[in-house]
Amino acid sequence: MASTNPARGMRDFLPADVRKRNYVIGIIKEVYECYGFEPLETPAVENLETLTGKYGEEGNQLIFKILKRGEKLRQETGDGRQELKESDLSDLALRYDLTVPLARVVANNKNELPRFFKRYQIQPVWRADRPARGRFREFYQCDVDAIGSSSMVVEGELISAVSEILKRLGFQDFTIRLNDRRVLTDILNTAGVSVDVHSDALIAIDKLDKIGSEGVSSELLSRGISEESAAMLMQIFAKTQEILNQEKEINRAIVANLINIVSNETLTELGHVLKFAANAPILIDPSLARGLSYYTGAIMEISVPDLAGSLGGGGRYDGLIGMFGKEQIPACGFSLGLERILVVMDERGMFPPEIAESAPADVLVTIWSEETVAQSMKLASELRSNGLRVTLYPEPDKLGKQIKYADSIKVPYVCVLGDSEIAEGKVTVKNLRSGVQETVTSADAAELIDRARAV
Amino acid sequence: MASTNPARGMRDFLPADVRKRNYVIGIIKEVYECYGFEPLETPAVENLETLTGKYGEEGNQLIFKILKRGEKLRQETGDGRQELKESDLSDLALRYDLTVPLARVVANNKNELPRFFKRYQIQPVWRADRPARGRFREFYQCDVDAIGSSSMVVEGELISAVSEILKRLGFQDFTIRLNDRRVLTDILNTAGVSVDVHSDALIAIDKLDKIGSEGVSSELLSRGISEESAAMLMQIFAKTQEILNQEKEINRAIVANLINIVSNETLTELGHVLKFAANAPILIDPSLARGLSYYTGAIMEISVPDLAGSLGGGGRYDGLIGMFGKEQIPACGFSLGLERILVVMDERGMFPPEIAESAPADVLVTIWSEETVAQSMKLASELRSNGLRVTLYPEPDKLGKQIKYADSIKVPYVCVLGDSEIAEGKVTVKNLRSGVQETVTSADAAELIDRARAV
Repeated sequence: MASTNPARGMRDFLPADVRKRNYVIGIIKEVYECYGFEPLETPAVENLETLTGKYGEEGNQLIFKILKRGEKLRQETGDGRQELKESDLSDLALRYDLTVPLARVVANNKNELPRFFKRYQIQPVWRADRPARGRFREFYQCDVDAIGSSSMVVEGELISAVSEILKRLGFQDFTIRLNDRRVLTDILNTAGVSVDVHSDALIAIDKLDKIGSEGVSSELLSRGISEESAAMLMQIFAKTQEILNQEKEINRAIVANLINIVSNETLTELGHVLKFAANAPILIDPSLARGLSYYTGAIMEISVPDLAGSLGGGGRYDGLIGMFGKEQIPACGFSLGLERILVVMDERGMFPPEIAESAPADVLVTIWSEETVAQSMKLASELRSNGLRVTLYPEPDKLGKQIKYADSIKVPYVCVLGDSEIAEGKVTVKNLRSGVQETVTSADAAELIDRARAV
Repeated sequence: MASTNPARGMRDFLPADVRKRNYVIGIIKEVYECYGFEPLETPAVENLETLTGKYGEEGNQLIFKILKRGEKLRQETGDGRQELKESDLSDLALRYDLTVPLARVVANNKNELPRFFKRYQIQPVWRADRPARGRFREFYQCDVDAIGSSSMVVEGELISAVSEILKRLGFQDFTIRLNDRRVLTDILNTAGVSVDVHSDALIAIDKLDKIGSEGVSSELLSRGISEESAAMLMQIFAKTQEILNQEKEINRAIVANLINIVSNETLTELGHVLKFAANAPILIDPSLARGLSYYTGAIMEISVPDLAGSLGGGGRYDGLIGMFGKEQIPACGFSLGLERILVVMDERGMFPPEIAESAPADVLVTIWSEETVAQSMKLASELRSNGLRVTLYPEPDKLGKQIKYADSIKVPYVCVLGDSEIAEGKVTVKNLRSGVQETVTSADAAELIDRARAV
């Protein structure tokens, strides 16, 4: 017999889970639409060549690849062949993030899309990562991106929108860490790290949160960065970290600290982002690196105290769309991690009661006998046309069993339609919480349940 | 340079497409929830063994298989090996329908789920089919299933719910064709078709719509059914088709016609379905077969005159869940095809204007200069807190260009915030349709735009 578990690292979402997910997604959509972002959806399956080379070496390994089909596969797997490579066997792959597909869509639809294309996209992505607590192989990203402008107004709006979402969800203690890839480049140059190992250095620096400065130092060495450079990098980050641990005027102090290292243009732009997202809790953090290789300017990451990873992150990627089209088009975006948000909200009990404890229906209609099914169905239909969510017991059964069933699925009301009620043209409404019941017309029943629901 | 097209048979959905899709999905969800169905979501990726053997031979071929990863793959693809089978190279597969995953979830969560589990599920599925007009490799199914009861009340409720959805979407001319797998079994037996080729015969009969009775006859012969049996089958179906072409009392006449062929129990149950779904436009069609192999009782399919295929279909599958668990659990479901519904609605122009012609925002706020960005952002934020969808022009630019841009994306209002407006604490609101503009406070601006929107 086949296993009934979902595949490794994948999850089934039962109704209570889906309701929580949809609640969060609903707020995210609402805020993005309020900011003028439009919905986009791309297929789960992309041509393999669309994805390869976009996420760095580590990312490439984690792409789920789809087996070629039919004749194309048979050509590769015939008898007596040489060693096969993944690219011999696969032509398609599962979506790995929402940014690369967006870049492809923008390049492909240049003439239909507005000059400034503001889109949001909430879809799952797949990564063949080793599953761990809070790390899944299928998870949702909630992305928002603005295409076509190099102005820092974009960063400001994105940060504002994301902050508003988190506030509406009930987060009050989040911080948006802000940095710029060019800050890191200038720091790496100052520390004497040669350009060809910059991206290696960034992968190591990105782990500062998780493995600490000693861990990063030794990874820097193993990635071919000299002892002197590594030490100088750690010294610079230690100094800014020292400022970050203090309370007052943090952002200004850090910028002052960077003045001799970072170019004026970058500092000015960072200043603009700070000004344009004035209401958001931003902290400049020069050690923030972000894993993905396509960022070119500002980078952001959201932290809350009780989560090791981030709730989301993003940045500017002015070079990515040019990899698909003839034209370089500036772009900047933010991605919220739905699963992380849900984990923290669950642990903190942040869901409103109507979401956390919702029932599948407002009322259950009983079925008395084979002969009265049609009457019960008619009553259900009347109650529904009054806006109630009505579940019909699916078969004639003992009344006690039907009521017990309603109670077990937390439905608060039962409408009993027995022979005597049918004869009178009435229905008995039973409130399962109070135990009170009354026999009324179906219109009154609808009103009674509806009124109680609104309280 | 990589191609910017989506993969073969896959589609990108630009904002106008997504809005139409979400409109239809919204109505489907609303009606299902009104009937007490709860949302379920399952992963896109299933263990290959979960899917194989569930969809018949043709279905098996169309499952997208995912390449094994890392060491597991290297073990298979090393040098000098024998011919490789798909199952050597693949351990996972893409979801092919929503019914098999549901059966797996029910078997896996028996104790958490209610005794009668009513769920809906709206998610994409993937089939490695040859793409054609209206046939895609990624498409959405909107499924609704009731688990745990053998009563025909379930069929009745499902048909009612689906009919209500179609009516709310504006369909008035659909028909729900109804049959029962046991009707077909009895007919096949009567025609002398031996049991071991029943499923072959069904695959042929399923094509009656598309290839006509001559086509089906010759396919029956090629599938090993005798000439006499094939002729008798075609005779039976011709007779019921003749009745179907008449207008009066169709269902009763067809049932009368089947009395000598079909068992009493099946006829009684068909009669119950007809009674319990009395408001739906049902036609009994004894030649309706449905492709999938897991059906055991009633089968249904929705037709409209201007579409060759169906808008959706379903049936009873009392044996499927038992393939995953120790226990046989009766079940019945219906699946609506989102893409088919959208195609017909598009061709008939059935979308309400606010969906068909929607703009990304109610108003665009201009940016006068680098110095006034913060004021424009503040105005945008005020308008948003009044419930408006506001898009901010992303950079300082010539006013004419900003207005032209608003017009190009169909945003009906522009709020101009120049030096003089800022000095006065006001804003100029321009109605792009009428050309009228007035200078008012930001609160008045919000009210003015909101009022116009409501008209």
